[in-house]
Amino acid sequence: MGSLGNSSTKVDLSHHINAKSRARHPSPLKDIIKFMGHDGMVSFAGGLPHPSLFPLERAKFDCLPPAASLTEDRHSLDQEKSDGVSLTFGRGLSTGDQDLTQFLQYGSGAGNWQLISLVKELTERVHSPPCEYECLLHPGNTNAWAKVVGLLCEDEDHVIVEEFTYPSAQALWIPMGIKAVPVAADAAGIIAENLRHLLSSWDEQERGSRRPRVLYLVSVGSNPTGTTISTQRRREIYEICVEFDIIIVEDDPYYFLQYPGYGTSVETSFTPKPIPEFLNTLVPTFLSMDTQGRVIRLDSFSKTLFPGLRLGYFVANPVFTERLLRATEVETQDPAGLSQAFALGLLQKWGIDGYLTWLQNLQLRYRTRRDWLLDAFNAHFDLLPAEKSPMPEAQGLVVCVKSSHGDKIKPVFSFVDPGAGMFVWCKFYFEGVHRFMEIEGAGKSNDPEQDFANELWQAWATELVLLTPGSYYHAWQGPGKMTTAARDADPRTAHFRFSFATPTKEEISAGVARLAKVIAKYWA
Amino acid sequence: MGSLGNSSTKVDLSHHINAKSRARHPSPLKDIIKFMGHDGMVSFAGGLPHPSLFPLERAKFDCLPPAASLTEDRHSLDQEKSDGVSLTFGRGLSTGDQDLTQFLQYGSGAGNWQLISLVKELTERVHSPPCEYECLLHPGNTNAWAKVVGLLCEDEDHVIVEEFTYPSAQALWIPMGIKAVPVAADAAGIIAENLRHLLSSWDEQERGSRRPRVLYLVSVGSNPTGTTISTQRRREIYEICVEFDIIIVEDDPYYFLQYPGYGTSVETSFTPKPIPEFLNTLVPTFLSMDTQGRVIRLDSFSKTLFPGLRLGYFVANPVFTERLLRATEVETQDPAGLSQAFALGLLQKWGIDGYLTWLQNLQLRYRTRRDWLLDAFNAHFDLLPAEKSPMPEAQGLVVCVKSSHGDKIKPVFSFVDPGAGMFVWCKFYFEGVHRFMEIEGAGKSNDPEQDFANELWQAWATELVLLTPGSYYHAWQGPGKMTTAARDADPRTAHFRFSFATPTKEEISAGVARLAKVIAKYWA
Repeated sequence: MGSLGNSSTKVDLSHHINAKSRARHPSPLKDIIKFMGHDGMVSFAGGLPHPSLFPLERAKFDCLPPAASLTEDRHSLDQEKSDGVSLTFGRGLSTGDQDLTQFLQYGSGAGNWQLISLVKELTERVHSPPCEYECLLHPGNTNAWAKVVGLLCEDEDHVIVEEFTYPSAQALWIPMGIKAVPVAADAAGIIAENLRHLLSSWDEQERGSRRPRVLYLVSVGSNPTGTTISTQRRREIYEICVEFDIIIVEDDPYYFLQYPGYGTSVETSFTPKPIPEFLNTLVPTFLSMDTQGRVIRLDSFSKTLFPGLRLGYFVANPVFTERLLRATEVETQDPAGLSQAFALGLLQKWGIDGYLTWLQNLQLRYRTRRDWLLDAFNAHFDLLPAEKSPMPEAQGLVVCVKSSHGDKIKPVFSFVDPGAGMFVWCKFYFEGVHRFMEIEGAGKSNDPEQDFANELWQAWATELVLLTPGSYYHAWQGPGKMTTAARDADPRTAHFRFSFATPTKEEISAGVARLAKVIAKYWA
Repeated sequence: MGSLGNSSTKVDLSHHINAKSRARHPSPLKDIIKFMGHDGMVSFAGGLPHPSLFPLERAKFDCLPPAASLTEDRHSLDQEKSDGVSLTFGRGLSTGDQDLTQFLQYGSGAGNWQLISLVKELTERVHSPPCEYECLLHPGNTNAWAKVVGLLCEDEDHVIVEEFTYPSAQALWIPMGIKAVPVAADAAGIIAENLRHLLSSWDEQERGSRRPRVLYLVSVGSNPTGTTISTQRRREIYEICVEFDIIIVEDDPYYFLQYPGYGTSVETSFTPKPIPEFLNTLVPTFLSMDTQGRVIRLDSFSKTLFPGLRLGYFVANPVFTERLLRATEVETQDPAGLSQAFALGLLQKWGIDGYLTWLQNLQLRYRTRRDWLLDAFNAHFDLLPAEKSPMPEAQGLVVCVKSSHGDKIKPVFSFVDPGAGMFVWCKFYFEGVHRFMEIEGAGKSNDPEQDFANELWQAWATELVLLTPGSYYHAWQGPGKMTTAARDADPRTAHFRFSFATPTKEEISAGVARLAKVIAKYWA
């Protein structure tokens, strides 16, 4: 906790609520709801359809056990025969594990209370937030972030983001005239001194808007960089946010997908660790350090159960969850009932311990996939630690090819071994690449780096391998800051993102071979 | 079609798209998606988790048949034994009716294409829109309306609504500084001449904003009034909207809950009509008359399947659905996968004809519930057609009590027999009610009507019967127009809404008896 100490301090953060969110009023119908529960009350007040008119009678979900063998070619039927779990929901009493009707009816906006209790229990186990907080269900982190922008941001604001950030999060607020202020990062996450400098030197006149109040971070296994912010860095960032009165939005879908570094010993099959030991391997969250209630955490089941569930939860200061609930009532209502039923049923059957075991199981799979990709890099290139490479100022590992002279090695790209998530973020070096120097030398392009990156992307696609161009992840600073030079980015470099979430081991191996073929041509 | 003819005219309505919606850009990731489908492509581009990591293996939903007996006390197990339908979803081939994996994975934003095809087929069958249109899934009409406001409205706009309108629809835009402009209605819906007058006499200076461009209507079984806009009135309204370039938002969750008037012969058990005959009983929608593409229709499964599904669909001009899809990508993503799976499975198993049979089945239930309420009115009061009542200028039926003198009858409230939906909207008459005259006479209240209505509501609640106060449904015209006098409403009247959706027959009967007891006291 550094100089902040461990004790929670009651800080009034209500001034962060924007004008539109402040103007939301609770529905007057809420006044009536408390009367509805009175014994013997006849209510003509609610517009809830009678449950006898719902055509769904029973639902059953067959699920894997937490420690299931998750190999990509498994036969699910074999699995389930041994130790699968079934979730059953029926109408009325004694027709299933849970009464289905409550999930078919309109909800209150906050979501099913039993599910909320369970995610609170999980939050306590994993984060032990030092501050007062509430949990509120939401239909996925995409919508959660939209609601947070609706809570905190005014039109024309600036929002602080990582130098490379998740494009859909930006696409949401670009129409509001909001701009990103990127903070540069190293392998431990955004650099605290840069953040402090940005805030302490903010000039409203020059920038055209008030000092930023929101820091948006995908703080574990970031999309696209794969970076996980270190514990020490988190403490520094949190202190700066206290000093400059910043709200931290901790968008953390990859939190449970943290794994050991490349090259450390690998288990071949899954053996769960005791839960406390597992939890100790996870970096402490901003929420876990939040003595003031200035962290809004966006948790999601998309990466841990499945994305189509469209279900997650906010963990935040009650001052914020109350306003988020008001927005939920008029913008989305409760998350879908079958999704809530499934998540509740599964968390009950598995138990919180079972869920944490499942997460360890996923961890091993993502770690294995990361290894498949880096093994393929190793098979087709020379991988050198930056300090021993021709690119000693790079971060992490430098991927090199032998030059056509045979003896010298040329750097192609560098990356930081991701310790979480599903992405490897690669910085490509174009210095001395003949075709790039030709484009640059012609003097006709106002962004030779981007033009060459496009050509490279196209050459890969022609060889049947796809990467995501790094340009998709540039912080949006307005139309005047789109070229490599205008963004003040390193000249003669560009980024590409590798996702190892979807392809099989064989596809990864074939894909990297195709990649290497094109690289050999350009970097020869 | 009146003077507009039947032919579709290509009208450019893109100027209706507001500044923020215009500023949305498609995600650049979309450019990559088309490459992903190439034969043999290895993609490191997508962030989709490998499906082997999803813990759900099979889902099964047991459902009623379309012509099920839907009495409130039915025993579902008996039902299902005979002719219920089961929807099964498994992973991979031949493990269910449909492959489950597609519903667990991230979607494109537009929703499952098979489900979209089915709702298009349904739209053709029911509305045969004369104009080019697209269907786009959404997570319920609450969110659909939020997206439409995000598409069409600017801050400080005025939106045209029915005189009494759905409060949650307003609560969404009140924080934007938007105000409602109400149009008075009679039993056939909002009055066309009033709409024309409002638009032709709009004074931007005086009103402080541009002429309204959006007409929001719950056009069948309106919440709260129960009114269904007549065919003739719809034609008049549509022509005015063409003349004044208005977009009609047809929020129509109760469309399929249209039923015959009170007192006509009632079937005791359900016998489905042939589908074309059923469709002929339904009022033509605005969409069915929309030659220009200026209707945005919000359809929902909340009232026809179940609310917890959080699933519905837009039907609109492609110019609008394209922008709505852009908003969907960054605000919500696809509706929940299990909801989509359920709806697709059910529509496939039942067929479109089966669904239309189910809707007839629901119709009878809502009609029966409406009858329960009006039968209870009949049992406790004298019901007179307005023209034969002491309140001849009223609409519909007037509910009276015998005065304490015994021979004279006093009007208590009037209502229009609803031909659709779940609500009876009652206008109460306070003229000559001793307690009301006392409040008014004291001269201390700036809204005696509202004060007496509150007292009445409280007296009912004390007797264990709840109504919804009419004040919840007043069009929001700003803080200066909240009292009965400021709203220019009929003096010495106030409204209450009865919902007959939820209580049982016995509860309805008991509730009306309690109501009558309080009324007898006040109107004696």
